[in-house]
Amino acid sequence: MTGTVTLVGAGPGDAGLLTLRGLRALEKADVIVADRLGARSVLAQLEAEGAVIAAEVIDVGKLPGHHPVPQDGINELLVELARAGREVVRLKGGDPFVFGRGREEQLFCEAAGVRVEVVPGVTSAVSVPAVAGIPLTHRGVAASFSVVSAHDQIEPGGSVSTSGTDHTLVLLMGVSTLGHSAHVLAAGARGADCPVAIIEDGYGSGERVTVGTLGTIAQLAAAAQVRSPAVVVIGEVVRLSPFAVSLAPASADAEDATPPASAAPRRRGRSRLAAALDAGLAVDTGLVRAIDTSIRSSHSSSSRKASLS
Amino acid sequence: MTGTVTLVGAGPGDAGLLTLRGLRALEKADVIVADRLGARSVLAQLEAEGAVIAAEVIDVGKLPGHHPVPQDGINELLVELARAGREVVRLKGGDPFVFGRGREEQLFCEAAGVRVEVVPGVTSAVSVPAVAGIPLTHRGVAASFSVVSAHDQIEPGGSVSTSGTDHTLVLLMGVSTLGHSAHVLAAGARGADCPVAIIEDGYGSGERVTVGTLGTIAQLAAAAQVRSPAVVVIGEVVRLSPFAVSLAPASADAEDATPPASAAPRRRGRSRLAAALDAGLAVDTGLVRAIDTSIRSSHSSSSRKASLS
Repeated sequence: MTGTVTLVGAGPGDAGLLTLRGLRALEKADVIVADRLGARSVLAQLEAEGAVIAAEVIDVGKLPGHHPVPQDGINELLVELARAGREVVRLKGGDPFVFGRGREEQLFCEAAGVRVEVVPGVTSAVSVPAVAGIPLTHRGVAASFSVVSAHDQIEPGGSVSTSGTDHTLVLLMGVSTLGHSAHVLAAGARGADCPVAIIEDGYGSGERVTVGTLGTIAQLAAAAQVRSPAVVVIGEVVRLSPFAVSLAPASADAEDATPPASAAPRRRGRSRLAAALDAGLAVDTGLVRAIDTSIRSSHSSSSRKASLS
Repeated sequence: MTGTVTLVGAGPGDAGLLTLRGLRALEKADVIVADRLGARSVLAQLEAEGAVIAAEVIDVGKLPGHHPVPQDGINELLVELARAGREVVRLKGGDPFVFGRGREEQLFCEAAGVRVEVVPGVTSAVSVPAVAGIPLTHRGVAASFSVVSAHDQIEPGGSVSTSGTDHTLVLLMGVSTLGHSAHVLAAGARGADCPVAIIEDGYGSGERVTVGTLGTIAQLAAAAQVRSPAVVVIGEVVRLSPFAVSLAPASADAEDATPPASAAPRRRGRSRLAAALDAGLAVDTGLVRAIDTSIRSSHSSSSRKASLS
């Protein structure tokens, strides 16, 4: 009797953002094939909160210094476990169908005669910006957004570069290539003054927000030693964050803004905003965190402790 | 003693896709301000499954023939309820920060001295395509995606139009303007042969998938009387759906494809695919549904019954 495979999105790393169906699947699983640290951390939090998860856990995720199991190996492992009659949960960070290779695993299993269910999850692309008070859309500010992973998506003249500041851009896995991405985007329609926020380790113990502009963010990130995992948000919506207090107001709204001297592309001039940021008004994240902690989505103290342990 | 407001993303309409923290907030709420039919349906499913939700429910959502409460009225209602000392949940379909005006409500409440917590949800932009087996990204097929709401985002020469078929495009609230959107996009970098899927009433009783191309989808949608709510997915990832069996293979992979006659833009020629679709090979959704029901994310029979009642 062949078992089934359930692809479960664990969400961004806070067990409270796991779905009800995801929890049920974990509770009845015989074996859990976990993707990465985020997914493992969710299991630890659930157990700390009293969930009974009896399944064996197999870690196939990436950790520094450890060789991850290659994708082919994961595919074959899922089929092998299901053929042995076991109820398998494949637990992935975020959503299985957003940079998760979930459909790839599903197709492999189904081709081998193994039934697969999919339980979508809360994607980091949306939920991590939310901890910094940044919505991906906002009336009058942005009515669309893009989510991009690799830096090779950001090319001079490409569609991502030609979109304006009213189109929110979310970069996942973008820290190592941030300098290049910011440089290309600053030379495009957004200009160097377009606001940028980096949210490191969203919902984790190392959560931190750094705010700047396309012109300043690479330098700020280097100075702050920003590290993966992090979500980068680029666009006018960043101004809606309480962490963006140091950003100058958008010139269209600013009563005291210098009137535009000409119709020259905005990338050619340096604005008060860029100057202010260069002058050291960049967000001190410790300070800003103290200004408004209420913006953070609430974590129960127990889950917070669990994620730290 | 002022109460708090918790903005909760209800997910796409299946109670199993509510988060654990969202459920906790609903269970301890005094009053729930519900956004629309989808959010109400989640409450009904939860109660059918045994959740105890004692809160008063205030419906401010949009229903055909009913005047919705305007946004200003919702903002003021939330503050008024919290100031009366009540624990308020503002329940929204999908995620509060994706076309949900969640940040707007949060800022209004905070300006009035009311504390707000945000509980992200499973966004329909990702989870509804998943019911049709469509991932927004897939190795070798698409490494980025955009989510767009209004048709005015899709303009000739705009960044959405210049993106190619390897950039997945998701249209929310796009049914009434589908003809215009498809026309503009077919004339852009994607060409008329770019695959399109429409998923109506994802996770609801009227769930249905219609597959075509940018050149054929408007006609197919009209013939099938496609209605809102629906999510439209545009790009090569649509081919990964079992509902896309009638689509001709992508020419790069097709052994028997007619070799390209020239480097002319693909929008200028009509492909075998477009011809096949015009000839009546468009997906019969009833038939395709029978071919592969396993692709659907599983619903427990109880929640399915609840959503039908």
